[in-house]
Amino acid sequence: MQTINASIITIGDELLIGQTIDTNSAYIAQELNKIGIWMRRRVAVGDVYNDIWKALDEEGSHSQIVIITGGLGPTADDITKPLLCNYFGGTLVVNEKVLAHVKHLFEVVFRRPGPILERNLKQAEVPDVCTVLFNERGTAPGMLFTKPNAAPDAPPTLFFSLPGVPHEMKGLMNKEVIPAILKAFHMPAIVHRTSVTFGQGESMIAEMLKDFEAGLPDTVKLAYLPNYGIVKLRLTGRGNTTDEANQLVEPLFQQLQELVKESLVSNHDEGLESVVGNILLKKGKTMGTAESCTGGYIAHLITSRRGSSAYYKGSVISYANEIKEHLLGVSPQTLTTAGAVSEETVQQMVKGALSELNTDYALVTSGIMGPDGGSDEKPVGTVWVAAGTRLPDGNLHIETLQLHLRFDRMRNISMTANHALNFLRKFILRY
Amino acid sequence: MQTINASIITIGDELLIGQTIDTNSAYIAQELNKIGIWMRRRVAVGDVYNDIWKALDEEGSHSQIVIITGGLGPTADDITKPLLCNYFGGTLVVNEKVLAHVKHLFEVVFRRPGPILERNLKQAEVPDVCTVLFNERGTAPGMLFTKPNAAPDAPPTLFFSLPGVPHEMKGLMNKEVIPAILKAFHMPAIVHRTSVTFGQGESMIAEMLKDFEAGLPDTVKLAYLPNYGIVKLRLTGRGNTTDEANQLVEPLFQQLQELVKESLVSNHDEGLESVVGNILLKKGKTMGTAESCTGGYIAHLITSRRGSSAYYKGSVISYANEIKEHLLGVSPQTLTTAGAVSEETVQQMVKGALSELNTDYALVTSGIMGPDGGSDEKPVGTVWVAAGTRLPDGNLHIETLQLHLRFDRMRNISMTANHALNFLRKFILRY
Repeated sequence: MQTINASIITIGDELLIGQTIDTNSAYIAQELNKIGIWMRRRVAVGDVYNDIWKALDEEGSHSQIVIITGGLGPTADDITKPLLCNYFGGTLVVNEKVLAHVKHLFEVVFRRPGPILERNLKQAEVPDVCTVLFNERGTAPGMLFTKPNAAPDAPPTLFFSLPGVPHEMKGLMNKEVIPAILKAFHMPAIVHRTSVTFGQGESMIAEMLKDFEAGLPDTVKLAYLPNYGIVKLRLTGRGNTTDEANQLVEPLFQQLQELVKESLVSNHDEGLESVVGNILLKKGKTMGTAESCTGGYIAHLITSRRGSSAYYKGSVISYANEIKEHLLGVSPQTLTTAGAVSEETVQQMVKGALSELNTDYALVTSGIMGPDGGSDEKPVGTVWVAAGTRLPDGNLHIETLQLHLRFDRMRNISMTANHALNFLRKFILRY
Repeated sequence: MQTINASIITIGDELLIGQTIDTNSAYIAQELNKIGIWMRRRVAVGDVYNDIWKALDEEGSHSQIVIITGGLGPTADDITKPLLCNYFGGTLVVNEKVLAHVKHLFEVVFRRPGPILERNLKQAEVPDVCTVLFNERGTAPGMLFTKPNAAPDAPPTLFFSLPGVPHEMKGLMNKEVIPAILKAFHMPAIVHRTSVTFGQGESMIAEMLKDFEAGLPDTVKLAYLPNYGIVKLRLTGRGNTTDEANQLVEPLFQQLQELVKESLVSNHDEGLESVVGNILLKKGKTMGTAESCTGGYIAHLITSRRGSSAYYKGSVISYANEIKEHLLGVSPQTLTTAGAVSEETVQQMVKGALSELNTDYALVTSGIMGPDGGSDEKPVGTVWVAAGTRLPDGNLHIETLQLHLRFDRMRNISMTANHALNFLRKFILRY
């Protein structure tokens, strides 16, 4: 089977010097990977003529597909487009369709007063040797250049130049780049299956899967993707057809799930908030949260998912003790004697959340995220989580979990959110 | 002045194929940039022996500092460490200090039952030609290799190999890598000054700053950093001493602030949640939120900041209308006639939030984030924001803002949060 290599070149000082985190490359690589293209290298260069030219030479020499992002915006240093023009031997000409689109965006969509800036109109100039990839989401068009291959019968190398604005780049990847690649190359079929686990370390899981991994055929790969207590296990198989790849991967995927069943959370690539949401949808039940230390992060994770309003009613973020008392009915005495970070407090918070939010389930957190606020008795990283529901007999049932985390503030918040969601998941499955 | 170039090489299929977003490189580049090192290139390669070797050759040929991350964890493919050993001509030996540390971590800190896995113990093996960079946060040590330079009198090229786990890499950068670089090279002094603006597009600001930018000396650079309605403007100046760099940048920074004063939010590199927090701290006032469409994201932004409990009391996330009625006192009639996404509703939400959360200020949101839930009258992206306070005369004062956004769900949530925080900022400054 033919292996198609791809390279990504990102252009721009802001990416290179770390002012912007490069999320584009991950998206591009994932989209290419889905259609079976092997990512060979990714190179980031600054707004430096010679460095960009050299990167085009190098990546074009070992990859059949080169995706270039950045360097095209209205405040870019006017290096990339003229350079591409020279590199592929063309001249800049105005593209009328793009020009009309730029004018439409400024006059009708953005409703900007006054004349359109010269720097914005210049976005409509493109090298006459490229195929314009129309960017309906922005002013900078994408461009496709082809370079003949020295080897006889080999297809030409494709160079795609895309704007660096993420949602514009994504639109062009889906509507233009992927279809053009599928047209130019005969691609193998690729199948991915992902298991999501929670609570076991990457090295423990790797140890359990040692023999399984060693026995995998060359056409199947296993990847470990750890993320705040979650470890995703992804099997990737390739075949001549999707059926062939499926038949190869499916029995191995069943085997994998059996091997990690103790910590298995899902057999789809999804987060814990999505697993919990699906269980609630299936059961026709609702939930609410009362967050202290996570400060709304669990609510944010849940509501980031489309359609979450079908099972998520809301939250009381009780950052101050006053709110724990007034809106959740936590007793002032408990807050004084046991403290805000205690089993008694989270139990009372659950009770208050269930009645005030009027939901079937409630999930609450209270803890010390750091860097300040710790004590000898309750160091930074001390967290109480509780989940509760009203049982069919009318009684309230509450369970609690204590965590001892040892990270920085943001990691402590993320870890607490995942532990809490997993705790709720197990709770809902039982009650 | 001598220019020191640096390259970053990231190793690992998970980064290359986009399963993990590379946040390490941005951090490394920022830290190097702070001490005046110019980032030349960043290259990502997979777990492929020849590709890693080639990257070491290439980057070592044009950069005096090469930072390598990844490829060292317990489930890594055992390629990187032996390769580095071969590349720099050494053999693997057990480092006793690292071995004791690995044992301590597993036995005392992680409290893992059973014997330590062979794959974890192997972390203590290092090439005998490297300087071990002790990693107190994890099991994989960092390594420093030096390669003599062909040019006479030139210092050797430094190759640092760091683990890919972000908080381990960060610890090593600060404690080992930066000090080693400052010892090896005479670095110019670098000064950064950042203005934060909100509400004006990148191209509009660039147009206003055209002459200013053109008039900057070679030793000062201006960078545009757009992010959900925010545009950060960063001036970077270099000199022989910090004083010299400061004297160069300071008057230009004053000029810059004057030019963008209409949209200026801060003259420090910070987010809107931090600007709002500082104003509240200075005034000795408190705030709360009532979020519908942003679902806790504003609360999360605010509580991500250490010490936010001094001014932030909490939130009612009223995702369901029932919660808007029950906890915030929004009238059922308003919800029926005007709807949840209306000026009347957000006004009533503010009133409820101020009284229920008992804060000096309240900020609320209600809108349609998509992709579902839009109508002809109120399309996806329709948002109402309101801010309120009780004036000294006892009267309630509320102001509202309507937004028309046109992005995907996550971008709509982020844009709404920033618009709302900026709206509150201006409100607090006036009342």
